[in-house]
Order: sequence, then structure tokens, then C-alpha cells
Amino acid sequence: MRILVQKFGGTSVADLACMSRVREKVKKGLDGGCKVVAVLSARAGETNRLLALADEWSPNPDPAECDSLLSTGEQVSVSLFAMLLRDMGIRARSVLGFQAPVLTTEDHGKARIRSIDPSRLLALLREYDVLVMAGFQGITPSGRISTLGRGGSDTSAVAVAAVLKAELCEIYTDVDGVYTTDPNIVSSARKLDRITYDEMLEMASMGAKVLEIRSVEFAKKYAVPVHVLSTFADAPGTMLIQEEKKMEHALLSGVALDKDQARITLRSCPDRPGVSAGIFAPLAQAGIIVDMIVQNPSLNGVTDVTFTVSRKDVKKALAAMEELRAQMPGMEVLHDANVCKVSLIGVGMRNHSGIASRAFSAISRENINILIISTSEIKISCLLEEKYGELAVRTLHDAFELGKSSSNGAGARA
Amino acid sequence: MRILVQKFGGTSVADLACMSRVREKVKKGLDGGCKVVAVLSARAGETNRLLALADEWSPNPDPAECDSLLSTGEQVSVSLFAMLLRDMGIRARSVLGFQAPVLTTEDHGKARIRSIDPSRLLALLREYDVLVMAGFQGITPSGRISTLGRGGSDTSAVAVAAVLKAELCEIYTDVDGVYTTDPNIVSSARKLDRITYDEMLEMASMGAKVLEIRSVEFAKKYAVPVHVLSTFADAPGTMLIQEEKKMEHALLSGVALDKDQARITLRSCPDRPGVSAGIFAPLAQAGIIVDMIVQNPSLNGVTDVTFTVSRKDVKKALAAMEELRAQMPGMEVLHDANVCKVSLIGVGMRNHSGIASRAFSAISRENINILIISTSEIKISCLLEEKYGELAVRTLHDAFELGKSSSNGAGARA
Repeated sequence: MRILVQKFGGTSVADLACMSRVREKVKKGLDGGCKVVAVLSARAGETNRLLALADEWSPNPDPAECDSLLSTGEQVSVSLFAMLLRDMGIRARSVLGFQAPVLTTEDHGKARIRSIDPSRLLALLREYDVLVMAGFQGITPSGRISTLGRGGSDTSAVAVAAVLKAELCEIYTDVDGVYTTDPNIVSSARKLDRITYDEMLEMASMGAKVLEIRSVEFAKKYAVPVHVLSTFADAPGTMLIQEEKKMEHALLSGVALDKDQARITLRSCPDRPGVSAGIFAPLAQAGIIVDMIVQNPSLNGVTDVTFTVSRKDVKKALAAMEELRAQMPGMEVLHDANVCKVSLIGVGMRNHSGIASRAFSAISRENINILIISTSEIKISCLLEEKYGELAVRTLHDAFELGKSSSNGAGARA
Repeated sequence: MRILVQKFGGTSVADLACMSRVREKVKKGLDGGCKVVAVLSARAGETNRLLALADEWSPNPDPAECDSLLSTGEQVSVSLFAMLLRDMGIRARSVLGFQAPVLTTEDHGKARIRSIDPSRLLALLREYDVLVMAGFQGITPSGRISTLGRGGSDTSAVAVAAVLKAELCEIYTDVDGVYTTDPNIVSSARKLDRITYDEMLEMASMGAKVLEIRSVEFAKKYAVPVHVLSTFADAPGTMLIQEEKKMEHALLSGVALDKDQARITLRSCPDRPGVSAGIFAPLAQAGIIVDMIVQNPSLNGVTDVTFTVSRKDVKKALAAMEELRAQMPGMEVLHDANVCKVSLIGVGMRNHSGIASRAFSAISRENINILIISTSEIKISCLLEEKYGELAVRTLHDAFELGKSSSNGAGARA
């Protein structure tokens, strides 16, 4: 059985006209000889409407009840869409999270998928040509409805594609693919034909909001071929693929800008063994994800430690550091939310030297001061003052000629 | 474990203010030392909003998808109400149809409850003090969401009370109990303190829309004590009870008016064995419920047959009779939708003669022509021209002094 998974986001299923357009995409999949699993989000605005209800009802809505409430958004979408397909004579039915079943952890509001037993879905696919699945939702081991958090429908789609061994997972969105950078910042930004899972992970975590990051992790782990494309156009989008031999000449895929950064500096920390653990353990305990970390060389037994966190976590992080001051008298805590992170991403930098120095030179030519540098195998990130963020993105995009098409479509060549 | 079941309809849970009032009712149940199962309907207007969506999406919405869609109405109610209870520090959680589970038949849109295994609910009641259950919905043997049809939440509540052996099932509505007749028609209509299941069945089927008829059948079958009362007042309502010895003096409980009647007359039917079967079999096949039936004495081998059906079924019934004319040449089919049925109800009439003649005399004194009479052990019904309906109700209510209170509260005395 050839299976195609298609995911449609909230704007794609917003109203009857949108759903009719989506129905054509499903029809095309069927005409291509596949059984189709269409994974739907809640209709645009619906999740926010339900969240507003929860907020009206309770100052601190119970997470399990909130999930049960929110899951009605997708439930409405899939019922309506299944009706629409059936009116066309297509053998279709809706499948809710508990019916699939999509088994998740008990972390309401941000549950993770534990397993999807494919046997039930495969049995349904023998009976029906299209399954309209509610994305975003699942069921916990104790039988309660859970949700996967914002953007969770992408993860639902990729996970279902993985367990059903689908030949392709199409993610339909309101943009037509993954770009070398944000086209709103750089007009010469170019749509990529292909991008590797690893590059996409860096792009996603850097704020390229095309795909939810967990869905990319899932796709990578199970080698699910994912095609990101637009509901509102017929053009091909961007394929997410595993790294290939012939890609080794491709240097860079894109430049990402992440404005959700805040810097915290601990000045005059005592520099003794275990001090880093002392700083970062309380942050981890508070559930705060630390991104970049820099420790300056020690001078006179004291050192400066700087790290970045998401802006929403600044208050919690400062509170944790305040407690630390009791044990580290003389330490000063500074913070600055007017920062951003610009990242250059590409699997090719593994095998090519000089990328970093070219990047730093380009930035310095614009007289932009780099506050922190952090690098990985396929990424170079610089923390900058926020006001320089877009200029730096344009500068790097131009310096590496990312706007120019390359034969394999995965970025500039060396 | 003492268990109290409370059912709240759509107007009782319409908004936050209403739900806060409902919360007080639950709190009172808890304070009385009971665990509470609160069965909720969809918020007022919600089911109609969802039905309108289905109609917008499809000329003929798939019933199973429609059920999945409609069930979100109750799902929203129970999540929100559980949040509200939890904010008060009450150990509460929502329970959906599939979670209870409420097992139903596969008749989507009008499913019947097959069974509710109490073990899961009892286990939850050991863990929680209040279960907020979604009324109206269940799950089919094949695992799809079903709904019980309009008013189904009453049935959900009574069924749950039955399986949990609850000490009482309170049905909160927007009226304060069951009346001797419609107070809009007769100003002296009196609220009954008690009514038997059988009387209530006659009242309900006659159009006294306080309780869904299936819920009364359920209550009778499992001898569930049901209390019908108002969400918006603190006064006691009407208790539904089994017939008691001391009630034998109570003659009558009420007068009901049913305007959903249409009369069909077959003139000059051949009067031969099997002719009745020939008439009523096709009606049954078409799913039409026939209410009153009269056959006149035969004359010259032909007879007249008159019966009544719900007005919405007139077209279907006439179509069925049209087919019959092929086999019964000379037969004439007449119909009239300007009729109504007035019924006098009371368990006491079993042991008291003369009720019928007193009723007919009262009606004839007003020069109202009775078109059809039908009687049961506890009911006398008369089909009248529609325009006389309300006058006949007032006449009977006065003739039997139903507005006067009686010591046992279940109607006038002989």
C-alpha cells in the first residue's frame, strides 16, 4: 500500500473555501495512486479563541482540562473536512488522537509522542481511502486527551508518516518553502529546493518558523522524506533530506535571525572548580534552556560568565541568580534583552575552512560588534546588539552569495 | 460511597456567570456528604452553531462526522466547568463519553445507550470528588463518537445514576418542575411535588418538554429517583417516583397539549382481513410513528380508517398511502394538519370510573367537536381542531380542579 501523508495548517483549513482548495490537494494524492492521511490543525483563530475561554474561566487553567478543551479545535476541522471529502464520493473518515491512537506522555500542554501503533491505522486504510487525522492531539497512558504544544500538528504528521512508512510527508503551509533567509529582511533570499535535516534543525531553532523543530527531529530520526510547500500555489517547495555525498560542495544553506535572546552576565564570579555547575544547575532545575555560554579567562581568581536565555525566561533566570549571590558575595548580575543572534548554517562548513573568518570579517566591515560567538559543526552563531540583527543577516547573505542559485539547490558553493 | 448525579442543561452552563451558579449547586451536593457526578450539556447555542457549520459544509452531512463535530460542544462545557471547580480547590476532572465509557449503538445522531461499565467511574470517584461528565455523547462498539439526539443529556444523567446506584439524580432546567399543565395556557397551573414515572412518560410524550422521554423510561426501568428542579431558584421541584399505595386517591396529574399532530383519513377502504396490516406496514417501514388509530364500523364492505402522525412525517405518510391506492382502487386519502391532541393524565383513573365521561362533557359544553378518542390505563386523549386546543386544556384543568393543591401533591382527588 502506497501511503502519502499531507499536513494542512490552520490557515489552510480556515473556512469552506480553504478546505475546498485543500480537498484538491488530497484528490491529487489519491489520483497519484496513494492512500492519503490528511493531518489537520484547528481552523485559524480557533485555538486562540479556546485559549481565551480558558483564560476567562480560570486564572490558572488546569493543563489536562485545557488540553481537552483545545483538542476540540482539531476535532471540528477533521469532522468538517471528512464531510467535504465524502460529499465528493471519497471513502474518508476522521480519526481523533484517541482513535489512532497517538500515545503520548502525560505532560499536558507539551506532551511528547511515545508511540503510534500502526495496526489500527493500517486497518482503517484498507477500509478507507483517506483518513483525516486530528493533528496536535493524543492520548495519555491514563486515557486523558493531551496536546503536543504549538506547532504540534507538524510533529503528528511526520510521526504518522514514520510509523506508516509513508513514501512522502507533505507539509502544506502559507509559505512556499524554506528560504536562505527571511525574505522580509533580504529581498534576494532564495527558496531552497533541498535542505538536510540537520540544517533544517538549525534553521528551525534559529527562528525560521516554517516547521516545528520536533517534527524535524522526528523526520531525521526516522528518515522521513518531508516536502514543505504552499497550500496556495502549485509550485514545488523544499525537500528535507538526509545528507548526500554530492552535497559536499554545498557550503551554506541559509542565515537565520533569532530575536528571542536575552543576555545575562555574572561579573566577578569566584573561579573555582564546580562554579559552572553551581550556576547552571539551578537554571536547569527551573526548566530554563540556556543557549550560548561564554566564560572569560580568569583574572585574580575571579571570572565573568555570560549566557543567553529566551526572553520569557529572563525573570526566572534572574531570580535563580539572585539566590546564587548569597553563596558568591561580590558577584554582580547584569542583563540585557536588546540582543539577537544571527546564524550562518550549512553542512558544507564541515569540510571547508575559512568560513568563520569570512563571516566575522563581513560583520566587522559594517562596524558591528560581536558580543558572543558560538559554533557547531554546521553553524556559526553571533550574538549582536538587536539593532544590528537585520543588517548582519543581509551582510552575511550577500557575502556568501546565498541569493544565487546553485546546481544542487542547497546553497552557495565554495 | 454516597453518589449524587446532577444534570445541567445548556442554559444553565451558558456562560461563566451561569457556571458559577451551577458550581454552588455542586458545592451543596458535596457539603451534603456525597460524591457528585455533574452531567453537562453543550453551552446554550453551541449545538446550533455546530449544526450550522455542518450544514454550511455539506448538503447531507455524514452522521458519524456530525456526531464527532457536535460532541465538541459538551467537551468544551466540561473542560471549562472542571477548571472552575478546581480553582475552588475541589478535586474534579472532566470525563468524556469515550472515557467513561458510555457504550452506545451505532445509530449516529440518535444512538441508544447500550451499557455503562461502572467500574471505571467508581475508580475515578475514589480519586476525585466531582466528575464532570459530558452528556449527550458516547462511543460505539467500533470506537467512533456517537450522540444520543436532542435532549440526550437527560438520558446520560439518568443512565449514569442507574449504573452508579446514585441516591438521587437531580435534573436542573430552566423551569422549576413539572406542572399540571402549561402555565402559559392556564394561569392556575400548579407545580406538582411528585409525579409517577408512568404519568411523566405520558406528560413527556404529550409535549411537556421538561424531560426527554427516554430518560424517563430509563428512570422507570432502573427505579432511579429523579428530582426535576430549577438552576435559577432554590425551591424544590418535582420528584419522579414509583407509584405508591397512598397515591390511589390521587386522580389526575395534569393536562397536556400536543400540537405536533396531523390526521390522515383513508376513506372507502375495502374491509377485508389484513387490510390494517396493509396500511400500517408501509408506514412502519418508512420509520413513521403512528399515534392514534380509529377504524369506523364497516358499511357495504368498505370502511374508513383514520390515524395521526407527527407533522414532519405527513409527506412521507402520504407517499406511502399513494402507493397503497394502486392495490385499493376507490380508496380516497384525506389529510389535515390543523389538529391537536389534548390529554388528561393520572394513575388514579385506573381505579376511578367516570373520568372519561366527565372529560367529554366538559369539552362538549364548550361546543368543541372531538375528532378521535384514544385511552390508556392512565390517560384519555382527544384529537381536536387545533384552534380549540388551548380552550380544551383550560376546560379540563378547571373541570378537575387541577390548580388546587392536594395533600399528597400528585393531583386532584376524587
